[in-house]
Amino acid sequence: MTSTETLNLTFAALADPTRRAILGRLASGNASVNELAAPFKMSLPAVSKHLKVLERSGLISRGRHAQWRPCRLKARPMKEAVDWLERYRRFWEESFDRLDDYLQKLQAQNLQPKEKPQRKKTHGNHKK
Amino acid sequence: MTSTETLNLTFAALADPTRRAILGRLASGNASVNELAAPFKMSLPAVSKHLKVLERSGLISRGRHAQWRPCRLKARPMKEAVDWLERYRRFWEESFDRLDDYLQKLQAQNLQPKEKPQRKKTHGNHKK
Repeated sequence: MTSTETLNLTFAALADPTRRAILGRLASGNASVNELAAPFKMSLPAVSKHLKVLERSGLISRGRHAQWRPCRLKARPMKEAVDWLERYRRFWEESFDRLDDYLQKLQAQNLQPKEKPQRKKTHGNHKK
Repeated sequence: MTSTETLNLTFAALADPTRRAILGRLASGNASVNELAAPFKMSLPAVSKHLKVLERSGLISRGRHAQWRPCRLKARPMKEAVDWLERYRRFWEESFDRLDDYLQKLQAQNLQPKEKPQRKKTHGNHKK
């Protein structure tokens, strides 16, 4: 798989909350389809469909025995996803910085006397 | 948006390579729909559709002027995605460790004399 394909399949697989919950369950140990299906109140075919998506993306692997095919978490494609996301880290950190600047500016304005001197007070909540 | 919804929309938005490329372009500065469409040889409606997905997920915002609605990267939802993925870090690091153990074991076996003593040599490439 190319890196682009890995990212396409990994992000698509992770976009579903049931699939994320399945990965969460597998983080505490391998499990069969039946064990995975139990907490979701889903049909086995529905769970199997999710497992196929996870398997295709390389996020899980399955045992080979016909009866007992335990699913196992394989987190490697997540590393590629994190590496891709990390390129944008400075943008989300910047946005926190900007929010921080803005809050400090707001607070400074609030503490400065305007028309008439007012007592220092903490910031009130704005309600819409 | 709940955290679950943010993750659903963010991962779904990131699953498409054109949308990831659009985010990459916006990382170097705000851009109009026309500017974003240019390198992709896509119709404006097709690009607009991608932009709507990105906007809904909170990964971009758009200016309010009717004629010039520059798109702007907003990386905050990516932070949530990385935070979620980071919970699995030990699994992908473990898988590297296991690979490393395996390679060391292979190498150790290779260095041990078997049927007849052999010279120490570096690992050869296996060809299929």
